[in-house]
Amino acid sequence: MAIETFAEMNCSIGRTMSFLGERWTPLVLRELFFGNRRFESIQTELGVASNILSSRLNTLLEEGIVERHRYSERPERFEYRLTEKGLDLQPVMLAIQAWGDRHTAPDGAPLDLVHLDCGHVVHAVPACDHCGEELTARNVRPQAGPGANAHQRERAARRDAEEAERRAAATK
Amino acid sequence: MAIETFAEMNCSIGRTMSFLGERWTPLVLRELFFGNRRFESIQTELGVASNILSSRLNTLLEEGIVERHRYSERPERFEYRLTEKGLDLQPVMLAIQAWGDRHTAPDGAPLDLVHLDCGHVVHAVPACDHCGEELTARNVRPQAGPGANAHQRERAARRDAEEAERRAAATK
Repeated sequence: MAIETFAEMNCSIGRTMSFLGERWTPLVLRELFFGNRRFESIQTELGVASNILSSRLNTLLEEGIVERHRYSERPERFEYRLTEKGLDLQPVMLAIQAWGDRHTAPDGAPLDLVHLDCGHVVHAVPACDHCGEELTARNVRPQAGPGANAHQRERAARRDAEEAERRAAATK
Repeated sequence: MAIETFAEMNCSIGRTMSFLGERWTPLVLRELFFGNRRFESIQTELGVASNILSSRLNTLLEEGIVERHRYSERPERFEYRLTEKGLDLQPVMLAIQAWGDRHTAPDGAPLDLVHLDCGHVVHAVPACDHCGEELTARNVRPQAGPGANAHQRERAARRDAEEAERRAAATK
């Protein structure tokens, strides 16, 4: 585990950021999703020190997010491929890219993504896996989940009470 | 700008990670999305040093992701609220949380999100903003965008050629 403080949190964002929050890791993943699978060519593209790249790839290996495949016997050379668990990070990458295209790219997106099924250049929007409608910052509400601890349950209940108060105050 | 190397990249992922890649920032955003807007209570919840929290909030202010609102005059106290640009980060947070719930929470999600429109506990899936279908690691293809530089155009073309070769080899 990369960032222990985060890995030990009872929080899906904290635990994920325990490796994704390491500097360079999202860019290493960008390269792997792009199809750039070899150490030297990832290093050249990113301009990152080899000890740092090596450390990041090792964390991703330990986390089961990438696997090594030997592509040359003499000299022995490996390439790094995303596992299913790694490919599952695609929604994270799509969301980061969509935000960056919208807010940091005044001259247009550096990289477009084409949706092969409909043929259009796309930006990802988060959809509800139950009804398919778009999820926004205003149409979801947090509540304690099955894995919540006592503190988290108490906190979610307090938040509900505060929200109810706020709504009551707003309608006065 | 927080991480200059990333901010200067012609890459929507790099530029976004220039602030989102700072340690603790995604957890600060988690708190803000949850409705926890005050310095002291964010600090208590996260257990982060006050100089670090202060630095992270300042970056978010500079980036236009949060705004300060005074809620007390004596003593003068402020709370931090997400701007529209900040609320636009919701898809990123949803995607990170969905991955974490799936891969790091064997005892169930610590926090559930309820979609207010359909009433169900949801996990976000990325959808195409054109046709609405789900985007996956296998149904999108990168290509040079309008903001691509010469290197990126050359690289995208080379990738296309390599992919074509791979497909040809696979069908032999």
